[in-house]
Amino acid sequence: MIYTIKETDRILKEGNGRVIIENIVPEIDGGRFPIKRVLKENVSINVDLFTDGHNLVCGKILYRYIGDSEWSSVDLISLGNDVFEGGFYVKKVGIWEYTIIAWIDEFATWQRDLKKRLSVDADIIIDLQIGVELLKAGIKNAPERIKNKLKKTIVLINNKKSKVKSLNAALDTDLLKIMYEYGKRKNLSVYEKNLQIIVDPEIAGFSAWYEMFPRGNWGDCKSKGTFKTVEKRLNYIKNMGFNVLYFPPIHPIGIEFRKGKNNAVKAKKNDVGSPWAIGGISGGHKSILTELGTIKDFEGLVKKAKKKGIHIALDLAYQCSPDHPYVKEHPEWFKKRPDNTIQYAENPPKKYQDIYPIDFSTKKWKELWEELKSIVLFWIDKGVTIFRVDNPHTKSLSFWEWMIKSIKEEYPETIFLAEAFTRPKMMYRLAKLGFSQSYTYFTWRNTKWELTSYLNDLTKTDKIEYYRPNFWPNTPDILHEYLQVGGPEAFKIRFILAALLSPNYGIYGPVFELTENTPVKTGSEEYLNSEKYEISKWDINAPESISSFISKINKIRNDNEVFKSNRNLEFFEINNENLLCFAKYNDDLSEVHLIIVNLDTNWTQSGWVQLPLDKFKIPQNEQYQVFDQLNNKYYFWKGNRNYVELAPKETPAHIFKIKRFQRTEKNFDYYV
Amino acid sequence: MIYTIKETDRILKEGNGRVIIENIVPEIDGGRFPIKRVLKENVSINVDLFTDGHNLVCGKILYRYIGDSEWSSVDLISLGNDVFEGGFYVKKVGIWEYTIIAWIDEFATWQRDLKKRLSVDADIIIDLQIGVELLKAGIKNAPERIKNKLKKTIVLINNKKSKVKSLNAALDTDLLKIMYEYGKRKNLSVYEKNLQIIVDPEIAGFSAWYEMFPRGNWGDCKSKGTFKTVEKRLNYIKNMGFNVLYFPPIHPIGIEFRKGKNNAVKAKKNDVGSPWAIGGISGGHKSILTELGTIKDFEGLVKKAKKKGIHIALDLAYQCSPDHPYVKEHPEWFKKRPDNTIQYAENPPKKYQDIYPIDFSTKKWKELWEELKSIVLFWIDKGVTIFRVDNPHTKSLSFWEWMIKSIKEEYPETIFLAEAFTRPKMMYRLAKLGFSQSYTYFTWRNTKWELTSYLNDLTKTDKIEYYRPNFWPNTPDILHEYLQVGGPEAFKIRFILAALLSPNYGIYGPVFELTENTPVKTGSEEYLNSEKYEISKWDINAPESISSFISKINKIRNDNEVFKSNRNLEFFEINNENLLCFAKYNDDLSEVHLIIVNLDTNWTQSGWVQLPLDKFKIPQNEQYQVFDQLNNKYYFWKGNRNYVELAPKETPAHIFKIKRFQRTEKNFDYYV
Repeated sequence: MIYTIKETDRILKEGNGRVIIENIVPEIDGGRFPIKRVLKENVSINVDLFTDGHNLVCGKILYRYIGDSEWSSVDLISLGNDVFEGGFYVKKVGIWEYTIIAWIDEFATWQRDLKKRLSVDADIIIDLQIGVELLKAGIKNAPERIKNKLKKTIVLINNKKSKVKSLNAALDTDLLKIMYEYGKRKNLSVYEKNLQIIVDPEIAGFSAWYEMFPRGNWGDCKSKGTFKTVEKRLNYIKNMGFNVLYFPPIHPIGIEFRKGKNNAVKAKKNDVGSPWAIGGISGGHKSILTELGTIKDFEGLVKKAKKKGIHIALDLAYQCSPDHPYVKEHPEWFKKRPDNTIQYAENPPKKYQDIYPIDFSTKKWKELWEELKSIVLFWIDKGVTIFRVDNPHTKSLSFWEWMIKSIKEEYPETIFLAEAFTRPKMMYRLAKLGFSQSYTYFTWRNTKWELTSYLNDLTKTDKIEYYRPNFWPNTPDILHEYLQVGGPEAFKIRFILAALLSPNYGIYGPVFELTENTPVKTGSEEYLNSEKYEISKWDINAPESISSFISKINKIRNDNEVFKSNRNLEFFEINNENLLCFAKYNDDLSEVHLIIVNLDTNWTQSGWVQLPLDKFKIPQNEQYQVFDQLNNKYYFWKGNRNYVELAPKETPAHIFKIKRFQRTEKNFDYYV
Repeated sequence: MIYTIKETDRILKEGNGRVIIENIVPEIDGGRFPIKRVLKENVSINVDLFTDGHNLVCGKILYRYIGDSEWSSVDLISLGNDVFEGGFYVKKVGIWEYTIIAWIDEFATWQRDLKKRLSVDADIIIDLQIGVELLKAGIKNAPERIKNKLKKTIVLINNKKSKVKSLNAALDTDLLKIMYEYGKRKNLSVYEKNLQIIVDPEIAGFSAWYEMFPRGNWGDCKSKGTFKTVEKRLNYIKNMGFNVLYFPPIHPIGIEFRKGKNNAVKAKKNDVGSPWAIGGISGGHKSILTELGTIKDFEGLVKKAKKKGIHIALDLAYQCSPDHPYVKEHPEWFKKRPDNTIQYAENPPKKYQDIYPIDFSTKKWKELWEELKSIVLFWIDKGVTIFRVDNPHTKSLSFWEWMIKSIKEEYPETIFLAEAFTRPKMMYRLAKLGFSQSYTYFTWRNTKWELTSYLNDLTKTDKIEYYRPNFWPNTPDILHEYLQVGGPEAFKIRFILAALLSPNYGIYGPVFELTENTPVKTGSEEYLNSEKYEISKWDINAPESISSFISKINKIRNDNEVFKSNRNLEFFEINNENLLCFAKYNDDLSEVHLIIVNLDTNWTQSGWVQLPLDKFKIPQNEQYQVFDQLNNKYYFWKGNRNYVELAPKETPAHIFKIKRFQRTEKNFDYYV
């Protein structure tokens, strides 16, 4: 119970604070959840400040790293109509907090009123005295240098000889800033909440994920890949431009009820099983499947990858095969059926007898939760900082909130990606309660309308504050129909969209770059001969590979700051439903990228792009250059309507950099 | 500090609650402020409920009168996509609170899954056992009659002879409601806040105010009106259909710096002064101006008015003339200037030497606030329940929140109208913190666009939950240019708009019904010879009076329930910028009113109304009747486009009741 009839007491206590502080943006669900930022990112805050009567108000943002005793402060600037704005940068990974203070700016009010009084009468002797009192109060707080300035001002105001000098001193605009800093803060109000910011490492805000089954056979190993084999693949991944390498579970795989190839209910003798059926006689979530290598091999791989700028991400799938040690050691962590058997996973009528879900509401939940957390700590100790969490929406949300918070308190650089494909409210709740990145509906957003409305929802609402989308054109579970029917063009188009519409994205390879697109059956999104259930063979040098295309797009992403943020995305009109046009640009317009994608994998599409030239400060009647970074071609455009034509087999997209024309004394050229 | 890093403890404690309860509508500013209702009104609540995994969830609204130990509960019904809805009626004036509980509906989940299992296999023996366990838990909580039903069901499910009987018993849909009520509430979550509702008397939601200077001379008194004279005017006011009679301050008026006629800086000998310059040698805010009568006279008037269904509303203007007893008795309640004089009111360069503002931040503010509150208590004791508060936006907002709350705790039927004409954020804050009704910008909203966008903002956003507009076409301070130039038609049009667009409205009379419209000078909104500064003479029987027109409109308002709410307002298209078309209708469509107003006071205007017939369940090809309640004419319309033409001098508006055609065995006629 937060507000009760007895809150009149609270109000009485606050009698002296007269400035209303409300409508702070961002503030998620009344401050129940933190906002998110990455290291060095800006936190821009808007707030309404006003008071009774005619006094002017002012305020500051207070902010600090959690646990610090001192606040830093930053000015709030009036935008008019009672709205104020300010901002600061977060320079350390971890939890920050911010709040607002506001007070009546007596000195600014006094200067304003003095001017008004001068316009009608000259009887301001007493008014000047009031100003002098305010300045004297300022002297008390000010540093020496400022003290002297204020003292001189008082002498000038008090001088009896020259009214002009007196008034000039009183109305000196430099005094406004001084008195804002050092004047008495009359009727100071403090916002009733401290709001929180989770500051993540930069990788949380800008990441290109490559998912790989390490056991896959790329022709670089005897029969199955190992961690040692993966070491050899690092350059290939680095050259394509990825910075996260994510493995499905690397733990022992259960034998009981093991699934066969293509998800067959019964496994054959040599079937390797699904990595998500975690746990066997050799161990559970803190063990490594013998065939992949040792803990030491794994640690070696993590280190080698890190040297190349690649983070290894692990899969966190809190579920057990019937052979998992937990099943024997902690039967109380699993639900029983009336016949005393353990309840297997099901989504009726489907049954997953190879997987036992964990009972998060078990009476022994505290021990269970601590053990589950210790799994994360175990792998953090081995050098892992990124976890992709399997189906978090089927586990207790309170568990996630507690676990992620308590891990990040100790290891703030840790990040968690929520692999939830479910109803919207659940997706967004998971993000609010702590997941650093989230899977999305991108995989099923293929048309212009779908992409535009989805991206606007993600970037133009308060979701931008807590939900970091991670766009995946494919996963081991999802081969969308668009890829099945669209050929290599579809892969290129979907890759461009994922990589350039979202600062975080990922692909499941080498399936993706090899443009493998055969479903297990018509109408299914499952792969035929899915790598989930068998050792697949891949020829990464096959001619159909689009790996060099991927390298090119990732280079554009990596070389241009604008692709690191989701806040600068804007869609522009183009009169063809098959063409999508969007821009990414920074505030000072030093980087303006205009991307036009042909969503049609079959036919050449053309249309007229409609650009808001004013926004880019390009004169209507002046030529500008659009430089296509994909093929190094450039075009000269003029005015706000320009023609484009895209043939999917040759150019699935334009990735233009807009260069404005610059004439100087010595030369003229296109720059920016 | 509400959320800290240590909240992990809180989450741990909540480990067992698994249902997320979020996005409760209404909830104002995260629960910081209450919503408002009037007695017997419905509180409809929407909330998102969901849980991890595939279980079905359910929930209830809990609500109670504050201080009651027991909660009442009402069902939440699923609207799909995780949204639930429910509602209840508030049957007592005062503060109510509501919250949400939600849990996993194990039995509904089990029935759903059982059906799915039946579709693929028949091995459901253990599943049936699970269901029986759930039913047994239900038996523990259920009343006797239900116990028996559940026991019989268990016997049927367990029977070995007939699988059909067993399944029919298990899948009985009647069990759903029973188990929702009496089943074990698994993983119960409780919303973290109790949200509040201020329930006001009905008059707070539906009122027609008549403002009058009692001292005015209506030809019914010697020279000045008194409370005794006002008694004789009650029938006139009642016949026009008003239910609130509001007086400007009735207290002694100061002599020092008294203003003369037309706001002259110096009063002449017999000038009576402004009633807002409160306080003289005969007393302050708890005294009555001798010329008006005695406290006993006042109490008599209050009683007589109440018998006629009229509430007397007083003006609460917390300010003092220099002669007010407070000035001598409590100099510490006023701000001093450096020359030791008391600071008079000013809005530079304007000075109001006849008024001393009270210093709400005085060191002795607790005593001051208590004294100011005691003024309200004093008049409550004399039978007053409605206070119109003068310029609340120039006084401490914390004071208002405390004062209104503490008065309403003791006297919940008391209501306060905020007379603030200021910036929007302040207007809405005053409403949030407790004012029961609020003055508005209506006076300055005259065009179709202005009226439509303003009313949509007031009725289609969460302002509907806390801001009760009170529309005034005129006040003693505001004679809008529209009235100055539009003649009697302007008065009629503005009256219709105020009375039918807002359940609460008021006029300042008899100036208004006499269509008096001379400003003190061109470009001013002040009246010439304003009654604020002198005794005015009025002939209420003058031929130009529109009092019978007012009676007619008020009768329509009073006779039709739809005008009692602001939630049922909808604007419809009409292809003429001078014609405004809106409907007020109830949910069962038993009352559908369609109002079309000609905003042009000079010229006949015509256009085509576009009606959404589907919404009113009128077939496109069937005739319906529109009955004009203003002149008892009726028209037959067909289809969704119909022609209207309004001549301002004859018919400024149509106030149609839409009557659908009904054919029965015996007769056919237009009804509804």
